[in-house]
Amino acid sequence: MDIMVQKFGGTSVGSPERIQAVAERVLKTQAQGTQVVVVVSAMGDSTDDLIVLAKKLNPTPYGREYDALISTGENISAALLAMTIQAKGGQAISLTGPQAGVKTQDLHTKAKILTVDTTRIKQELQAGNIVIVTGFQGVNSRNDVTTIGRGGSDTSAVVLAAALKAPVCEIYTDVDGIYTTDPRAVKSASKLSEISYDEMLELASLGAKVLHPRSVECAKENNIILHVRSSFSLDEGTWVKENPTMESTRAVTGITLSEEEAMISVEGIPDQPGYAGQLFSELAKAAINVDMIIQSAQNHQTHSTNTITFTVQEEDLAQALQITETTAKTMGAQNVQSEKNLGKISIVGVGMISKPGIAAQMFKTLGDNRINLKLISTSEIKISCAIDRKDAKQALAILHTAFQLDKVTV
Amino acid sequence: MDIMVQKFGGTSVGSPERIQAVAERVLKTQAQGTQVVVVVSAMGDSTDDLIVLAKKLNPTPYGREYDALISTGENISAALLAMTIQAKGGQAISLTGPQAGVKTQDLHTKAKILTVDTTRIKQELQAGNIVIVTGFQGVNSRNDVTTIGRGGSDTSAVVLAAALKAPVCEIYTDVDGIYTTDPRAVKSASKLSEISYDEMLELASLGAKVLHPRSVECAKENNIILHVRSSFSLDEGTWVKENPTMESTRAVTGITLSEEEAMISVEGIPDQPGYAGQLFSELAKAAINVDMIIQSAQNHQTHSTNTITFTVQEEDLAQALQITETTAKTMGAQNVQSEKNLGKISIVGVGMISKPGIAAQMFKTLGDNRINLKLISTSEIKISCAIDRKDAKQALAILHTAFQLDKVTV
Repeated sequence: MDIMVQKFGGTSVGSPERIQAVAERVLKTQAQGTQVVVVVSAMGDSTDDLIVLAKKLNPTPYGREYDALISTGENISAALLAMTIQAKGGQAISLTGPQAGVKTQDLHTKAKILTVDTTRIKQELQAGNIVIVTGFQGVNSRNDVTTIGRGGSDTSAVVLAAALKAPVCEIYTDVDGIYTTDPRAVKSASKLSEISYDEMLELASLGAKVLHPRSVECAKENNIILHVRSSFSLDEGTWVKENPTMESTRAVTGITLSEEEAMISVEGIPDQPGYAGQLFSELAKAAINVDMIIQSAQNHQTHSTNTITFTVQEEDLAQALQITETTAKTMGAQNVQSEKNLGKISIVGVGMISKPGIAAQMFKTLGDNRINLKLISTSEIKISCAIDRKDAKQALAILHTAFQLDKVTV
Repeated sequence: MDIMVQKFGGTSVGSPERIQAVAERVLKTQAQGTQVVVVVSAMGDSTDDLIVLAKKLNPTPYGREYDALISTGENISAALLAMTIQAKGGQAISLTGPQAGVKTQDLHTKAKILTVDTTRIKQELQAGNIVIVTGFQGVNSRNDVTTIGRGGSDTSAVVLAAALKAPVCEIYTDVDGIYTTDPRAVKSASKLSEISYDEMLELASLGAKVLHPRSVECAKENNIILHVRSSFSLDEGTWVKENPTMESTRAVTGITLSEEEAMISVEGIPDQPGYAGQLFSELAKAAINVDMIIQSAQNHQTHSTNTITFTVQEEDLAQALQITETTAKTMGAQNVQSEKNLGKISIVGVGMISKPGIAAQMFKTLGDNRINLKLISTSEIKISCAIDRKDAKQALAILHTAFQLDKVTV
């Protein structure tokens, strides 16, 4: 019998009424002749409430106790869903990460899942149960509960699908699929029927919040097809898989906008190896996430120097600037400059590899609209530009139209 | 090194401020050169809130999922207390029932604790940790979380004290000890400095809510001295132990009142064996708790009949009456009568065994005040009388004075 893994996020189990709806959907799936494994997040904002409580008592509550605390939200929603299914005449059992055999690294708050011992899950499925597994958590070699970091429940679901050899993992959320861009920002954004893993990875990394990049990576590695859909309707959502049929026809699949960007430039760095490494190690030690990085060389008469420019989240700017200035001094660099109030706009599509001129079209479209490019960075399937934040929303709309993503049913 | 077990109830960990206070107290105990094991209940009413939520989704949510749900409250308070101790510079670790090796029967919602594998607790104590164990929960042979029923955290604490060979178990609560009667009902009630296990058992069974009878029984069996005291002050509370020094001097140690009682009489039962057993089996099947039972015989010319009278909680009266009437018919009994609006007053004291006339003094005191006795039941250390509910509070005050329990420092 086929196994279906269905994951429901915090909004989908956010109230007794929503839990009832999930129970009915899950029972319907089982009635179609499938064994069902359900992965749940904590109800609504309950985990955030626990974090607030914890920080009152300990401002830096990381590690083992933090995980013991914040993993309880998933235990609650899993048990409630199981008893709701039972109330409707179904057979269900909730399993915590440890009970479900989800073994992680010893590390706390962001452990990686190492293996899944599916013995108990399979026993419970054989016994006719809908098996509800708490997302976001596992157990380490010390028999302590661990959590696996942000986006954890998506990853839990995909890992379980892989371990159980389920071909498809359904991700139920509060939107009805993946869009060409954020529908709140661009009204004409259209829902994609399919998207490739790589495109989804870029979109997720660039700020599309529907799926965590880690879960997409895991799906790609294990060849699990993801179906991202709404828990509020029966409509199909977006299929995330290798080589979707659309791949060859469309150059750009989606556009994302990330606001709150800032930029730092270090100018006149003596051209000697190791400087970039030193700078970005210092920033990493302070847990500052560096995004776009550009290096350019200047040749003078007697020597060469380099300029390194990079972007950070604006909230990290002050700290990043301080670290950069200190490091620049030890490097013998001439000058450090910074700029705030930036945004980053990115176009993503596997088609752009085989279609020349996409980058040119992007730059020309922005230029025709007098939008100035501060920084450009590209990958095989993505082009990102830093621009003034005040131009960001306009740029998004213009590019969405220019790349023919408006109101298209892909 | 000595081990001290300290148990804190829901009120004692009911807010961040209360958790701070518990952390400080526990650290102080450790600083006195003791290894400390702390048992915690869930914060305030959090478990009741979960039960309300559960009943919305499943009106009869008993069993495995119910336990998985309601055990989460203790996980939260234990982790919060551990991180609070850490914030104050202490070393602490929270252990769930399963992690602490608390093995129970397979049964859910009221499992008995079978054994405690103290390996992990001892390791963590050796490592210098204050070990915080979730009360009320354990693990069964299927690796599922169980809960151990009402009063569970007190019992968890006593069982752990026994397993760890701790001589004393401190029970911190929101009152400062055990009183001769409920201080809210009788202003002159006095705090007992000591009480025997047997007296405490009777008082607890009769409605003194401070300690659950089960925990007292467990303390008696394992010879663990209990110290019931307030988490809001440093004053000594009441010591519960074998043969307290006061035993020989005092006939009556405490008086309890239970209102909400009702009475049923079955008259004219043919004098044949098995009738009482049949009746009370039927009531037990319906989970009706029968309290006082009296049987009297009537000798007629040609035959003998019996009258059985018993009390139940008034909320159970309608159902109990229905079952009794059905059973009475099959018995060939003549008549079933019932009475509502009763109360039960009980005097308790190990001293009454060796002091004749205590029962007489009780009956006479009540009679002198025109309080009518409906039913009397006695044990070695307890005399209970059913009386009209309207007389109950007066009876309590009168007896409290008559047995010289007023404002005494025992």
